[in-house]
Amino acid sequence: MKFLIKDMHVSTGGPAIVLLHKEDAKELDLYTADRVRIYVGKKSTIGVIDILDGEGTVKPGQIGFFTEVFTKLRGVKGGFARLEVLPPPEALRLIKRKLRGEELTKKDIELLVHGIVLNKCSDIELSYFVAAVYMDGLNTRETANLAEAIVKNGKSINLRSTVLDKHCIGGVPGNRTTMIVVPMVAAAGYTIIKTSSRAITSASGTSDTVEALASVTFTKDKMLGIVKKTKGCMVWGGAIDLASADDRFVKLERPLKLDPEPILVASILAKKKSVGADYVLIDIPVGKTAKVTTNKKARSLKNKLKEVGEMIGLNVHVVITDGSQPVGRGVGPVLEARDVLWVLEDDKRAPKDLKDRALYLSHLLLKMAGVKKSKQKVKELLVSKSTLLKFQEIISAQGGVEHVHSSDLKLGQYTYDFKSNKKGKIKAIDNKFITKIATLAGAPKNKRAGLYLHRKKKEKVKNRTVLLTVYSDSKQELSNAKSFLRGCSPFEIQ
Amino acid sequence: MKFLIKDMHVSTGGPAIVLLHKEDAKELDLYTADRVRIYVGKKSTIGVIDILDGEGTVKPGQIGFFTEVFTKLRGVKGGFARLEVLPPPEALRLIKRKLRGEELTKKDIELLVHGIVLNKCSDIELSYFVAAVYMDGLNTRETANLAEAIVKNGKSINLRSTVLDKHCIGGVPGNRTTMIVVPMVAAAGYTIIKTSSRAITSASGTSDTVEALASVTFTKDKMLGIVKKTKGCMVWGGAIDLASADDRFVKLERPLKLDPEPILVASILAKKKSVGADYVLIDIPVGKTAKVTTNKKARSLKNKLKEVGEMIGLNVHVVITDGSQPVGRGVGPVLEARDVLWVLEDDKRAPKDLKDRALYLSHLLLKMAGVKKSKQKVKELLVSKSTLLKFQEIISAQGGVEHVHSSDLKLGQYTYDFKSNKKGKIKAIDNKFITKIATLAGAPKNKRAGLYLHRKKKEKVKNRTVLLTVYSDSKQELSNAKSFLRGCSPFEIQ
Repeated sequence: MKFLIKDMHVSTGGPAIVLLHKEDAKELDLYTADRVRIYVGKKSTIGVIDILDGEGTVKPGQIGFFTEVFTKLRGVKGGFARLEVLPPPEALRLIKRKLRGEELTKKDIELLVHGIVLNKCSDIELSYFVAAVYMDGLNTRETANLAEAIVKNGKSINLRSTVLDKHCIGGVPGNRTTMIVVPMVAAAGYTIIKTSSRAITSASGTSDTVEALASVTFTKDKMLGIVKKTKGCMVWGGAIDLASADDRFVKLERPLKLDPEPILVASILAKKKSVGADYVLIDIPVGKTAKVTTNKKARSLKNKLKEVGEMIGLNVHVVITDGSQPVGRGVGPVLEARDVLWVLEDDKRAPKDLKDRALYLSHLLLKMAGVKKSKQKVKELLVSKSTLLKFQEIISAQGGVEHVHSSDLKLGQYTYDFKSNKKGKIKAIDNKFITKIATLAGAPKNKRAGLYLHRKKKEKVKNRTVLLTVYSDSKQELSNAKSFLRGCSPFEIQ
Repeated sequence: MKFLIKDMHVSTGGPAIVLLHKEDAKELDLYTADRVRIYVGKKSTIGVIDILDGEGTVKPGQIGFFTEVFTKLRGVKGGFARLEVLPPPEALRLIKRKLRGEELTKKDIELLVHGIVLNKCSDIELSYFVAAVYMDGLNTRETANLAEAIVKNGKSINLRSTVLDKHCIGGVPGNRTTMIVVPMVAAAGYTIIKTSSRAITSASGTSDTVEALASVTFTKDKMLGIVKKTKGCMVWGGAIDLASADDRFVKLERPLKLDPEPILVASILAKKKSVGADYVLIDIPVGKTAKVTTNKKARSLKNKLKEVGEMIGLNVHVVITDGSQPVGRGVGPVLEARDVLWVLEDDKRAPKDLKDRALYLSHLLLKMAGVKKSKQKVKELLVSKSTLLKFQEIISAQGGVEHVHSSDLKLGQYTYDFKSNKKGKIKAIDNKFITKIATLAGAPKNKRAGLYLHRKKKEKVKNRTVLLTVYSDSKQELSNAKSFLRGCSPFEIQ
């Protein structure tokens, strides 16, 4: 049976999909997600069947090619295609075994991740794997094998120098310690290749905040050029493709907001391994409204990170920190960048908690690398402005202005002051509400939008004290943030 | 932000999908499977986002509509669309709760099934539900609620007469008792509305075999016309849409060949409830190479079917039967139809096991309905040819020839005799190998292809005795079946 090729002009970035009319599919006994070898002239490739169930332009006798099929059949523009039905990929058997609660071997997991990276599995099939891991977990050995398979099936960096790295589990607005730790480690003479994410549900990811000052999107080679020059970088991981299997998991986890611990652990450690990190510090903030909500969960995650790290030959240290309120005072890209610069400039407006936390993490990381008197060392690096100079050097290497300074920064033009409606002491600040207000004001899309916290936990307030100021460049967005604040305050005052 | 509408000319029969370029998706902070309200002029509808990750014809500023979007926005041909981001559908929260191992209430399950039927959930999302049920199961109450929700969200039939029904769990080639039970029950004066499936992995489903003699694809109204005239029918369930939520599950279960028991149970019983069955007989064949492989599994399934049946007000009787070898002698649509006709014609070539089993099931079903001396009754109905006449009446009502007879049937023109290579007694016949040989010969696509078993279990054979004959209409397909037989024999001889 031959089919007339039709270009669907559609690309999904996933498997090479071919569309058949349902009558032809029935005739060939083919079902959604079945694998076929597609022959066009002397060329052939493997495709995944999708079936047009209703009316469409793929008629009986035609076959619709997604762009990925043409890419794989280089040179083919049209003509006729023949199909050969293939057995399901080996990876499916492994996913089914996991669903049944069986342990997968190192070889199994490598095969699975290889299949994921080569786009051999459909979304439906991989969702089953994520579901199995969410429900039953993976043991330490499986998680380590997953991390190693992700490294093996992605790009890697192998520098001769000692490489340090840090990671934060997240969920706390304003927690931009990375932007202080990176220049400090580099100023101390160590290499640190920091790839970060953008905001997914937060008001600003590290990449969004760095982007308020410089570019964050670089190829791997351009990034290595920056590291060679400055010993550090703060770039967006999404453009580097260090652990590409991970992107696929993220896509499937998002609709149900799943975040299975073993995939989280494997994905974090795989990224550290990919950049060739010798010492890795991981920060787990704990708080009722943070990502990790209890100390018990934090300790379990800590143990898993340490055990798996050890199994894959990474020197991992994990600290559990306070995530009960935002860190620093600014929330939103520019507002957070200003906090960071104030710390680096040793300005008196520098938020003490951000400064203390960044110094603590830098000290721990340098200590891991064998630096003597690291606690004193990091203070010196800050006070001497070595860290600020290094920061400016990196920002400039990433295409930002020379000698960036906090006074250069501009905030949103419309503001709203939210005031206390009673006297008392602040007991808690809800991270999720703070994030919501900053995103309503336009962050992270609008870099200058966000909010500034005038008061934080344990501080006393009077009636009518200004608690926070919202910044926005849109009257509508400011008014949305205002409406939200009228409905629910992020401050608990007693 | 306004988008220029582009008709993708693609329909999937699933949710209303809109495609965005990845830059626009980033700008709007939208991800795959996010829900949006789509406004075009004064019309609006809900769509599911998909993102073009590579190159495609949806450029920044454009929005690709799948055919389902145009169907929902009746009258809209093009122009500009605005989007409003919606919260995820309630059904997702329920799926996540199931993944966490929580029990779902009747209301939860109704909401979920309603969402499935209205195509509110993406494939990824529903796969998580199937995975959760596969791994953790559903309790009896949840299964009953699922069955009732499927009935409620599909078409139903409500006749005034007493309706009987039967179902077979399957996995045994040649097991065409339905085609004898249906005319017998109808000849006894009861109504039986039998919807069956086509072969998915077998050589012939009941629908494929009936189709060797008559049409099986009818609308619900046409089918009811046949039932009104003859009291029975044997049609393809896929065209009737009695339990439409079920089709969606089947699509998602297929890639990994999952068949979670609770979904199986709910789906079988929902279909029986939908046709208004008063008495339901379910046959579970057990055998090493059948669908249900052990007596223990069969008993567990039996109990579940009975308990859930009772909870939804169905009178269910379950029998466990021998599935250790094919039933009858023919395998493949026409070959099976010939076995059935031989039984009905009381021909001496009628396979005894098929006849005995069909009479046994008919007897049990009539007994459930209160027929006295049902064992004797079914024998009379057979010997008097009342059942044959009723069968011919139904076949004719379904568009087949008048007075259909076994002598009308034509088998594949090319044949191959497979012979024993030793003397002994047949210990077992592998159902899966038999299915494989018949499908290699061309069944069920070619109605005349298949095989005929000359010898069955417990029979003695000499060296060179013909064990089976393969029938095909293609020399190539015959040769494929031959090659397979040379490699592995379905007969175990001792």
